[in-house]
Amino acid sequence: MRLAELSERSGVSTATIKYYLREGLLPPGRQINRTTAEYDEEHLRRLRLVRAMIQVGRLPVATVKEVLGHVDDDSLGRTMRLGAALWALPQVAEPDADDEYVRAAHEEVGALLDRLGWHNARQLAPLSPAYHSLVVAVAAFRRLGYAWGAEQLAPYAELMHRTAVLDLDNMETHPSDAEQVEFAVLGAILNEPTLRALHRLAQEEESVRRYGFA
Amino acid sequence: MRLAELSERSGVSTATIKYYLREGLLPPGRQINRTTAEYDEEHLRRLRLVRAMIQVGRLPVATVKEVLGHVDDDSLGRTMRLGAALWALPQVAEPDADDEYVRAAHEEVGALLDRLGWHNARQLAPLSPAYHSLVVAVAAFRRLGYAWGAEQLAPYAELMHRTAVLDLDNMETHPSDAEQVEFAVLGAILNEPTLRALHRLAQEEESVRRYGFA
Repeated sequence: MRLAELSERSGVSTATIKYYLREGLLPPGRQINRTTAEYDEEHLRRLRLVRAMIQVGRLPVATVKEVLGHVDDDSLGRTMRLGAALWALPQVAEPDADDEYVRAAHEEVGALLDRLGWHNARQLAPLSPAYHSLVVAVAAFRRLGYAWGAEQLAPYAELMHRTAVLDLDNMETHPSDAEQVEFAVLGAILNEPTLRALHRLAQEEESVRRYGFA
Repeated sequence: MRLAELSERSGVSTATIKYYLREGLLPPGRQINRTTAEYDEEHLRRLRLVRAMIQVGRLPVATVKEVLGHVDDDSLGRTMRLGAALWALPQVAEPDADDEYVRAAHEEVGALLDRLGWHNARQLAPLSPAYHSLVVAVAAFRRLGYAWGAEQLAPYAELMHRTAVLDLDNMETHPSDAEQVEFAVLGAILNEPTLRALHRLAQEEESVRRYGFA
């Protein structure tokens, strides 16, 4: 398809598409003559992914470029491609290792991973932004005086593991490796608001069931 | 306890505590004489809640005041107190009702709630920010060309319902009504980062189990 059709089908203006092409967020089309290039379904798919990251995820162009670099790096195995792409997304700051609550939270999260048998996650922990976020959240609860540790977290973690199994099952329904990694990136951006909303709706439902409407 | 001890035990400076008192985020202490007031454990608990909302939740003082107004309104039943407090937290903008993807998403989310038997959530939907967020997220996925509707969402919703059951079970372990509603507000602020982090860790674990480390 020509640029005009790519714009029409994606809902992205030709000026914006040209900008993405210049910035390398979109691979160049196949040049037909000096002024015309031809684009295909893969360009359309990539364009939608870029739009989701910029408009829904509110990521800066430099981050989008970094994420796409990992998505496209087929020298890596799938775990590392997924990991590198997701880890390039914005993360919370690393916790202050000197804080007593942070130290206690590290121990509780370590105990949690052992208890669950999440040996792979344990091994990735020093590298993993998710591990650091969890330590920060657990430390915040403990600082408020709540007993919040491996015991309280374990049932939540089991449910989140079942959620992750659904995520990867859904991802595997996509045909190519590239599409699977793209779907995982979208999931990280779009699925988190979805889960948060479903969680709140479920709380409303359960609250009314237990305590009535009043 | 005196102001100095309240400051020491909460880790909040006396100047900040005085500011919260002036703004009505903290109820006044019991006046002992013209210059000295006495504070109790309830002040300490409330102070921690206010700190969590401001420091972790990054809520503006006006929002904190609104949330606390609902937490303290014992003329309301528990569902409404919980709902009003949580609904006062920042929410996504309401979706554009004219958009074709938004219309389709409304239908899919309605079908989802029917399929799950979440009749209470369905009844609350027009009021509920969670319902609107879900519609926005589903519309975003559909706009990208993914078949994302009641069928794909149902298994996630079931897991989120089990998560909500855990939330309310944990909440009910707290002795008073006031403490329960406070815990629910903290949960909404601190538990979402926790769940997001557990979800990512579970994805890492499951990814390595399926595809290895490379």
